[in-house]
Amino acid sequence: MLIRDATLEDWPAIWPFLRRYIADGETFPWDREASEEQIRVTWFPAPPGRTVVAVDPDGTILGSANITPNHGGAAAHVANASFVVDAGRAGRGVGRALGEHILDRARADGYHAMQFNSVVETNTRAVALWRSLGFDILATVPDAFRHPIDGYVGLHIMYRRL
Amino acid sequence: MLIRDATLEDWPAIWPFLRRYIADGETFPWDREASEEQIRVTWFPAPPGRTVVAVDPDGTILGSANITPNHGGAAAHVANASFVVDAGRAGRGVGRALGEHILDRARADGYHAMQFNSVVETNTRAVALWRSLGFDILATVPDAFRHPIDGYVGLHIMYRRL
Repeated sequence: MLIRDATLEDWPAIWPFLRRYIADGETFPWDREASEEQIRVTWFPAPPGRTVVAVDPDGTILGSANITPNHGGAAAHVANASFVVDAGRAGRGVGRALGEHILDRARADGYHAMQFNSVVETNTRAVALWRSLGFDILATVPDAFRHPIDGYVGLHIMYRRL
Repeated sequence: MLIRDATLEDWPAIWPFLRRYIADGETFPWDREASEEQIRVTWFPAPPGRTVVAVDPDGTILGSANITPNHGGAAAHVANASFVVDAGRAGRGVGRALGEHILDRARADGYHAMQFNSVVETNTRAVALWRSLGFDILATVPDAFRHPIDGYVGLHIMYRRL
């Protein structure tokens, strides 16, 4: 598996599985009515933001991630990142590989820390992955996410220094 | 003091004191190089976001605040809000009046809770105000804000149910 910088030409391969996550409404606190164009702009943040893709040896895009400052100005040294893996190709370590890559890139870009603002607490696989990559739960915002099956659940704010 | 919905015609009165806060870099984690247009778009969030102004009996705008969902989609029932008071007219209860108003409006708009993502911990007047209005500190992101005088300080994530 290769992880490389994404270009807009990769978008048609990312959109189908990203759209599925947004439509499922179980892990992404994004507006389900947002247009493809709005989502694309968010997934490809302006510099210093960056977007990468994980690519199979046969050229298939397996997942994607992006990194951007979590706040602006005097807080721009803390990064935020988002991840998506093609659900049809889960369990192959794509999420972990993307996570490790993004941590390295964030460090190389000079960020001091990484913060996730909204990890759905019932997304236990993601929570376990981030913990294994050194993230702590700073806080859990109670009932902040309305899960389509589980109802109101918490959103973890996760953090690690780089 | 009257608090009413803001219109774009109020912007020329808001911008001078908002700009001053951004330029000072002590309380707003915003890009100091952002254009007036970029800041204006942020200060007047699209519906369901709303913006209000506090107005003196003589018509002078004393401060402003806005409210918007903190995240989208299944997390849009938690509000976020931003506040600014003309520093030349501080100490007259404008911040508290705006805070109480915004809490009432958020409740009326159907939000379940309000969350602030980045209250600079050295901004003790703001922290005390939000505490007195029922907010708790959920977490403090360490060294997340580079204060121009104090160096790296924490950013409080503050929260209250509505």
